Amino acid sequence: MAQTIAQIGEFALIERLRQVVEQEGVGLCGPGLGIGDDAAILGHSPGCEWLVTCDVSVEGRHYLPSCITSRQLGRRAMAVNLSDIAAMGGQPRYALVALGLRDEAQTLGLEELYRGFALELHPHGAALAGGNLSRVEGAEFIAVTLIGEAEAGRAVRRAAARVGDAILVTGHPGQAAAGLRLLREGGGSAGLEDHPLVRAYLAPMARVREGMAASRSGQVSAMIDTSDGFLGDLGRLCAASRVGALLQAERLPLSPALREAAHSWAEDPIELFLGPSDDYELILACEADRAEAVMAQIRGAGQAPVAWVGRLTDQAGRIELSLPDGTRRPLAASGWDHFGKGGESPW
Amino acid sequence: MAQTIAQIGEFALIERLRQVVEQEGVGLCGPGLGIGDDAAILGHSPGCEWLVTCDVSVEGRHYLPSCITSRQLGRRAMAVNLSDIAAMGGQPRYALVALGLRDEAQTLGLEELYRGFALELHPHGAALAGGNLSRVEGAEFIAVTLIGEAEAGRAVRRAAARVGDAILVTGHPGQAAAGLRLLREGGGSAGLEDHPLVRAYLAPMARVREGMAASRSGQVSAMIDTSDGFLGDLGRLCAASRVGALLQAERLPLSPALREAAHSWAEDPIELFLGPSDDYELILACEADRAEAVMAQIRGAGQAPVAWVGRLTDQAGRIELSLPDGTRRPLAASGWDHFGKGGESPW
Repeated sequence: MAQTIAQIGEFALIERLRQVVEQEGVGLCGPGLGIGDDAAILGHSPGCEWLVTCDVSVEGRHYLPSCITSRQLGRRAMAVNLSDIAAMGGQPRYALVALGLRDEAQTLGLEELYRGFALELHPHGAALAGGNLSRVEGAEFIAVTLIGEAEAGRAVRRAAARVGDAILVTGHPGQAAAGLRLLREGGGSAGLEDHPLVRAYLAPMARVREGMAASRSGQVSAMIDTSDGFLGDLGRLCAASRVGALLQAERLPLSPALREAAHSWAEDPIELFLGPSDDYELILACEADRAEAVMAQIRGAGQAPVAWVGRLTDQAGRIELSLPDGTRRPLAASGWDHFGKGGESPW
Repeated sequence: MAQTIAQIGEFALIERLRQVVEQEGVGLCGPGLGIGDDAAILGHSPGCEWLVTCDVSVEGRHYLPSCITSRQLGRRAMAVNLSDIAAMGGQPRYALVALGLRDEAQTLGLEELYRGFALELHPHGAALAGGNLSRVEGAEFIAVTLIGEAEAGRAVRRAAARVGDAILVTGHPGQAAAGLRLLREGGGSAGLEDHPLVRAYLAPMARVREGMAASRSGQVSAMIDTSDGFLGDLGRLCAASRVGALLQAERLPLSPALREAAHSWAEDPIELFLGPSDDYELILACEADRAEAVMAQIRGAGQAPVAWVGRLTDQAGRIELSLPDGTRRPLAASGWDHFGKGGESPW
């Protein structure tokens, strides 16, 4: 029976494609077909592992030209990929960029786009190693492949978190989706450029230094970036590690701007914190009695605040929120299905 | 003054983008922004160099779904990238695939697409190392990043060809464009699947084993694949090496099928051989007194015929065709500009 992707869904599709590839005798490593870790760990040279990841931004789907400048778009498209390397604790080394461009694309805009790429690569000493320009008639796209490296055995995966581990998170998840909502309500970025939520959406900072510090500490058992949303990505980490999670509501790092926006929308800021949002923060797991030391190392290496928001439990697949009054609320861990029923990507 | 890509052209654009990236202090390695060698040579581990390349196939621009099956499309999209690694003499190791798919994409077609990828990767022992699925509303696309490796110092570049070197070529360039023309004239592949020219277009063979043999020989000074057309790609090799070329008309490996098609179209088969066509054959340069030995090594390693078609001259940038009557005809070496005036990509 013929089925469309929308009918079968992204995850079932990926499982089918994985089977096809294995039937043909071809190896899969790392995320294989897009699930698993944030980046693939490739065969390595002595002392070092190579990491590789690939993310695409499609016009109209992942960005709206009316809401973002070319330079911001370049930075953002690169940051999305840097974040995948960060979530493995790797050092970004080489980027390749494939662009789909319309004939009428402006060269000035493209120069700004590349300036954006360069501004993100420069602080990490990463180089631009290649690219490809294709002509398209419809939506433009930016496909970035990023290659990084990690000390042998030091790349941090998703699947090794342990029951009892502390759950840490950098920055303030939920802000990017709120920023996008402000942009949409405002019909563009005019006058909103400096709003902290809008900045969180337009100019996310990949937590590369924080991820490398986590790797160097040797104490972080698992790590993932919040590219889909705090709850969805925590759910993935838990699923990969076969653990559950208990979050403390009063420990969640809700930014003042997020609280304010939630108030103006008459919504619960915790829902905004937990829900779909591509903030590119890191969620980390480590032994509880090492958590303070790990947090200090991460703060010392980077610029992001780090919060201890809960712990991992033996209730595999179950994520609960502990409220100040002592009650617990079960949370649905919904991974983001890019082809789900009517799902609209948050970016 | 605002300019579009169509106005400025692909090569001028790439030069501008290169300047922007360098101004921002970011390194460029290998092809940098899409020109230079077929693949980038990355920082390497002891004894081995990593190669990386990225090519995109856009629906309606690089392929027509009515003319190609999903499995053929998967093979072709992978072969295009394998060819770039082949043209450096490298061994393909890892592929990453980013797809832009519409909601209504059929899962069966996608399974066939992945089977196509796997069928191309399997003979080389290469693995699928990651991927990305994006939802698009317009044209679908397939972006492949391929990582290969070469023995340290053995990757073959474009820029080291020498005056006096023999020019060798694998297979029968020109066939792919003729095959596409047959498909367009016939309105699809029905009844044409087994035509040798159509097969050359739909199912190109990347010359991976031939490229590796060339590298192992230690005698090949420069190499490039014919992704744009024999004359255009030979022109690039000559430009990179600052040499000219003199081709012998009677030595050009015109396939019987190409001669026949040229006859039926009342055209010169040599024009079809030289012109825009994405055949993914290899053009190689080597010392003339080693040419026979190199050809024997390449034939022994792979399946493709190899022909000796001319020699490199000191007339930098000049490519001439020597005719059987002793006269010489200058040829315009036109690189394919994907954004040139009204240019229609041959694939």
